[in-house]
Amino acid sequence: MNEAAPPAGAGEFDPADRGSYRLWRHDVLRFADLDPLGHVNNGAYGIFCESGRVAFFEDLRGSLPGARVDWVLRHIEIDFRRELHFPGTVDTGTRIARFGNSSVIFRQGIFSGETCSAVSRSVCVCFDPVARKARPIPDEVRALMQALSDRGHAPS
Amino acid sequence: MNEAAPPAGAGEFDPADRGSYRLWRHDVLRFADLDPLGHVNNGAYGIFCESGRVAFFEDLRGSLPGARVDWVLRHIEIDFRRELHFPGTVDTGTRIARFGNSSVIFRQGIFSGETCSAVSRSVCVCFDPVARKARPIPDEVRALMQALSDRGHAPS
Amino acid sequence: MNEAAPPAGAGEFDPADRGSYRLWRHDVLRFADLDPLGHVNNGAYGIFCESGRVAFFEDLRGSLPGARVDWVLRHIEIDFRRELHFPGTVDTGTRIARFGNSSVIFRQGIFSGETCSAVSRSVCVCFDPVARKARPIPDEVRALMQALSDRGHAPS
Amino acid sequence: MNEAAPPAGAGEFDPADRGSYRLWRHDVLRFADLDPLGHVNNGAYGIFCESGRVAFFEDLRGSLPGARVDWVLRHIEIDFRRELHFPGTVDTGTRIARFGNSSVIFRQGIFSGETCSAVSRSVCVCFDPVARKARPIPDEVRALMQALSDRGHAPS
Repeated sequence: MNEAAPPAGAGEFDPADRGSYRLWRHDVLRFADLDPLGHVNNGAYGIFCESGRVAFFEDLRGSLPGARVDWVLRHIEIDFRRELHFPGTVDTGTRIARFGNSSVIFRQGIFSGETCSAVSRSVCVCFDPVARKARPIPDEVRALMQALSDRGHAPS
Repeated sequence: MNEAAPPAGAGEFDPADRGSYRLWRHDVLRFADLDPLGHVNNGAYGIFCESGRVAFFEDLRGSLPGARVDWVLRHIEIDFRRELHFPGTVDTGTRIARFGNSSVIFRQGIFSGETCSAVSRSVCVCFDPVARKARPIPDEVRALMQALSDRGHAPS
Repeated sequence: MNEAAPPAGAGEFDPADRGSYRLWRHDVLRFADLDPLGHVNNGAYGIFCESGRVAFFEDLRGSLPGARVDWVLRHIEIDFRRELHFPGTVDTGTRIARFGNSSVIFRQGIFSGETCSAVSRSVCVCFDPVARKARPIPDEVRALMQALSDRGHAPS
Repeated sequence: MNEAAPPAGAGEFDPADRGSYRLWRHDVLRFADLDPLGHVNNGAYGIFCESGRVAFFEDLRGSLPGARVDWVLRHIEIDFRRELHFPGTVDTGTRIARFGNSSVIFRQGIFSGETCSAVSRSVCVCFDPVARKARPIPDEVRALMQALSDRGHAPS
């Protein structure tokens, strides 16, 4: 995480460009990620994206001591661009692309060094665990999420 | 697989309707599929879809003794509709939605009984393993794939 | 599960013999279970054993409406005997080998048809979730566990 | 890896002590490693051990340009000592405990900081891929393996 980098900002960005992300998650490839083709199986890409989103929500939770806000994954898309091989590591960048009333759209990029191996788009819905249905994202939560996406860390 | 069912046919169909599929894959949920929320993790849905596509290509290979045709997964999308719980089983239906010149678009549905838990759309590209690039899908392969999708088994 | 089979009984038994088990769990092999050697990765064997033990404890829980008894896995051993290949299925037999004061030793066998692919031995410890330490297995729980192991279903 | 550390040496050692290992593998815990109990599932421990052994054999292969030596996993045991929680990392130490004629016994320890979360013992057999059976470990391979275990890197 480069603290000196400018905020990722709004508007258009290239999800396959490392420079588009401020929030990073690091992963180590495992032998068990490989499939009979000798490369990292597509399922592992989804797992890297998931860990990136979970890390995002964990950071958010730390900034929201009073409120409990739950999220459910409604949709995911992954474009596979490059093979990944064992041994090695990946960095997964996570960024908010857009908010809906009760949903947030993430864009993510999985990088091996400077090379983008995959990009992803996912939709998470803010969820009321008691009523068991979607709820609007509270304004203060929205602001914290945007800050986390823009700066790579929760505002102090 | 219902042998007496009419061919799935062309045109529009509902990917969340069991009746849209002729080609089926059966899976048993595992405790290891569960995550801390107590339900089947989203990664497992991708794994069920993958096993459905692999089964499709294995069946295809059996009908194509002479030719070697490779496929790579370029894109996947999954819409999550319902939670899945352990213990239990799922049936994954696989169907061709459309052909491109060198690609095929699959639609898949994951069902727990009659209930659709997720639908998926994936793009696989026909691949020349020597030239290491995409190649047009041969006409006879295309015909066999369509027959497999329509009837749930390779033509005899 | 063969209801007509005699109780598995006490004493010595061959964990690689299908006839030694009354309690069965069925699993379907997945493409994602495969590793670069083209066979089912050793990790999947552990997952089949786990699902067999979890099924055991779920059955037990159904017979113990009043009491909550927790179990933790302390030790596992697996002997790998045969490769497993996709596509295919396995049946995992689970049986109690011995009780300690607060622990139970399971033997398990993973079978592909009549062929034994692996045998396993695992130690689970009865756990007090409040005191966060091991506790003796209550006598009535022990009796139900033995019955489940001997007959493949909870006593009615 | 501490290059200045003395060779791990022969004889007795404590597999739960970080100081017993020279060869290390680093892993990052994933959300997908968690199970409904909220801790890292036992299967993940097996995966960390596997990646440690694979890394060992990859290093060995780099030191053995001419010869092809295959290995199969025959047996694994894991003692679970401590829970692991997401997010976090683990270091897995790998060491040779003993050689047989055609087999090698590894000891491994999984550490979260200084805390040992699990220890493992596994048996790998040297395998002739043509004859499809066990073969004696060549003397020069044995010497390189011992050096790798003692020093954490292949001899130059």
